[in-house]
Amino acid sequence: MKQFTSVYDIPDLNAAVREALELKRNPFSFEHLGKRKTLGLMFFNPSLRTRMSSQKAGSNLGMEVMVLNAGQDSWTLEFRDGVVMNGTATEHIREAAAVMGEYCDIIGVRSFAGLKDRDADYSEEVLNALIAFSGRPVVSLESAIRHPLQSFADLITIEELKQSEHPKVVLTWAPHPKALPQAVANSFSEWMRSAHVDFVITHPEGYELAEEFTNGVQITHDQRSAFEGADFIYAKNWSSYGTYGSILSQDTAWTVTQEKMALTNHAKFMHCLPVRRNMIVEDAVLDGPTSVVIREAGNRVYSAQTVLKRMLEAL
Amino acid sequence: MKQFTSVYDIPDLNAAVREALELKRNPFSFEHLGKRKTLGLMFFNPSLRTRMSSQKAGSNLGMEVMVLNAGQDSWTLEFRDGVVMNGTATEHIREAAAVMGEYCDIIGVRSFAGLKDRDADYSEEVLNALIAFSGRPVVSLESAIRHPLQSFADLITIEELKQSEHPKVVLTWAPHPKALPQAVANSFSEWMRSAHVDFVITHPEGYELAEEFTNGVQITHDQRSAFEGADFIYAKNWSSYGTYGSILSQDTAWTVTQEKMALTNHAKFMHCLPVRRNMIVEDAVLDGPTSVVIREAGNRVYSAQTVLKRMLEAL
Amino acid sequence: MKQFTSVYDIPDLNAAVREALELKRNPFSFEHLGKRKTLGLMFFNPSLRTRMSSQKAGSNLGMEVMVLNAGQDSWTLEFRDGVVMNGTATEHIREAAAVMGEYCDIIGVRSFAGLKDRDADYSEEVLNALIAFSGRPVVSLESAIRHPLQSFADLITIEELKQSEHPKVVLTWAPHPKALPQAVANSFSEWMRSAHVDFVITHPEGYELAEEFTNGVQITHDQRSAFEGADFIYAKNWSSYGTYGSILSQDTAWTVTQEKMALTNHAKFMHCLPVRRNMIVEDAVLDGPTSVVIREAGNRVYSAQTVLKRMLEAL
Repeated sequence: MKQFTSVYDIPDLNAAVREALELKRNPFSFEHLGKRKTLGLMFFNPSLRTRMSSQKAGSNLGMEVMVLNAGQDSWTLEFRDGVVMNGTATEHIREAAAVMGEYCDIIGVRSFAGLKDRDADYSEEVLNALIAFSGRPVVSLESAIRHPLQSFADLITIEELKQSEHPKVVLTWAPHPKALPQAVANSFSEWMRSAHVDFVITHPEGYELAEEFTNGVQITHDQRSAFEGADFIYAKNWSSYGTYGSILSQDTAWTVTQEKMALTNHAKFMHCLPVRRNMIVEDAVLDGPTSVVIREAGNRVYSAQTVLKRMLEAL
Repeated sequence: MKQFTSVYDIPDLNAAVREALELKRNPFSFEHLGKRKTLGLMFFNPSLRTRMSSQKAGSNLGMEVMVLNAGQDSWTLEFRDGVVMNGTATEHIREAAAVMGEYCDIIGVRSFAGLKDRDADYSEEVLNALIAFSGRPVVSLESAIRHPLQSFADLITIEELKQSEHPKVVLTWAPHPKALPQAVANSFSEWMRSAHVDFVITHPEGYELAEEFTNGVQITHDQRSAFEGADFIYAKNWSSYGTYGSILSQDTAWTVTQEKMALTNHAKFMHCLPVRRNMIVEDAVLDGPTSVVIREAGNRVYSAQTVLKRMLEAL
Repeated sequence: MKQFTSVYDIPDLNAAVREALELKRNPFSFEHLGKRKTLGLMFFNPSLRTRMSSQKAGSNLGMEVMVLNAGQDSWTLEFRDGVVMNGTATEHIREAAAVMGEYCDIIGVRSFAGLKDRDADYSEEVLNALIAFSGRPVVSLESAIRHPLQSFADLITIEELKQSEHPKVVLTWAPHPKALPQAVANSFSEWMRSAHVDFVITHPEGYELAEEFTNGVQITHDQRSAFEGADFIYAKNWSSYGTYGSILSQDTAWTVTQEKMALTNHAKFMHCLPVRRNMIVEDAVLDGPTSVVIREAGNRVYSAQTVLKRMLEAL
């Protein structure tokens, strides 16, 4: 594997899930594979799960892990080409990426959408600059428009817990006080569309995701009908793609409640975390027996470890 | 050992000090004990000694150590139950703790008192939330009301240096420009009360600590009489417990001076650091031959290593 | 080697470069040398290359590496002696350094010039305090007035790429929007003056460096004549030493361009990074085939590793 930025970098999802579950059973079985190899993790945004699970995945494989908080530990970066750098940015991503490439065998990068300029966000300038200029395999630790390690961990979780061959999985929009990127929702849709599940998205009008991520997916504005018979409810907020970055609704009628969960087929409740309690989901659901959010977070280690293992094997 | 939050987690102080001194002589004698185990250190506040000594203690035991600066590297946290999270806090401690539990075998946490709400501080909400929700052994790296790894290191230092079986140890309040928590003083009192020492506290009126920490301890407002015949002088500022969080005095008549040290039995000068020079203590004392503050800091490695070793053995 | 703060800590530059190039060929050949040894890296300023290359150099030698962001992870520090610490600084460098010495076998420190008080900067108070109070070998990771690991990496790069026994090396001042320290320029001059090269400095009037760094070096205000026949062009901005810390010129007539590079003997373009594009140097030069800035950054690992190896051998 040369890069990991989306579901399209995994040729066979079933095989990848099996590999991840085997690593979960024997996390140290490849601890010599990463010996004398360095994993560099560059964060433009805060992170708890991604930071710790990626560090642990690298360590489990025997790698040295170096973490860099961009703009805090290091310099503020310029991404535009051809500019006269007489402002506040002290280093161009071209040099920063190439230098990280000198020190690291594999590079992970987290960089959220700015939610100001849709074309800029959807062109994945930070992620693509790292790939273009570092000369190393790059793992997305959540880019402007995708969060593939999360979606991979979500798929692992679904495979572990499904009660039928072809479970019904519902992605539901839920309210949030701040404008959030579409990355998790985009990515989850992409992965579910490729997996052996019956996938439905439900959201208020105006919250349509970009078509490239939802082509062929059933979409409804009726949350209750979507929940009927569902085996997995995946809640997530995102801001509008059409009116880019806007909050069109904070309607708590979309909050996931016990009463709505009763419509499902004893569905498991999923969320990528961090989650706003009693906005996205009621305490009773999140703290109840059907909540699998902590298991999802735990599986982040094994989605990352599978990807890093494949990259190490291809070095 | 399942948790380490106070002196009450150490059944036999003498045995613990002997174990720590044995680790000091042979720091790497248990370097296989922590192999493939992960120590997560979560800091809500700055730290030099605790950060480095805990990292080193974990490394000496062969552990992987992951450090997280809460609210800087990761998310701002909510601690209250039942709230609608529509404000600035992005993640609830329930999830943050449980997720850390997925990645770490042992968790250390530093979280100072806010000094606004005494009941909240003295209920140890952050520390207890970590214990309740992480599902892992938790080491206090200084909580709102105690700093037990510091007190343990202080006891090790006293045992190393004492000239008599039953030395006189004096905890003296000293002035400081800012309001500080009572944690170090509370904890030191708790530990000294349990150790084979003659323990005296001296402070200005109004600076009484909570009774649970000082029950049975001799307390005087006369600093000079307290110093007489002392073998160890432990200086520390704290803000008022009664008028909670207030500075009642910045009287430099309480500063520890050479002239006062002359009243003692050639006492060693102790402080947990960081120390405000010429407020808490004169340069001449701190830089003189009786100062053992650096040795105390060095012993932080071995108090932490003893605790981590016991936790690893009990996993 | 007890300390590494300047070229004067390297008795034989040729031998040091050979040792670095041998480590570059076999980076792990001394991975047992640093086993059970701890490298502490203290940053008062941001860093990408220094942070990552020093971490990697330590890891390559088998060391445990602990990184501390002073004033962010830890406390704000006081450097003046004899003061009453009743202000914002919470810890004195005397204690901070001595405590780091308890936890680390070797200490690296980065601390830039403040550019306010020339005497203070040129007395190297932070670096010298670490040396005086830590009791450990100290590596400068860029001090107020020197950046010796950078200069060492630059010399390695020149030795790797030189086409003649005695290449012409030119240090040219170039414009920058902010006032920068003289450290890189001072240090580069010191190293080149000691190496087997024909060394020339060119800068606008008023940008004279301190004589101790440039004694015996040819200096000209005519950039074009300096470039003629050059084998290496090293660009760098610095603020005025005479009118201390001032920007006397931002004249882009001093920017390094393709047209000027054509005056040279097919010179390699060098810079320590981060570099302001189209201020210091045109994109066309930086992105062209003669640019060796990324190689310089890569060689930072081996300059650091050579120094750390020598320190470990002398422990």
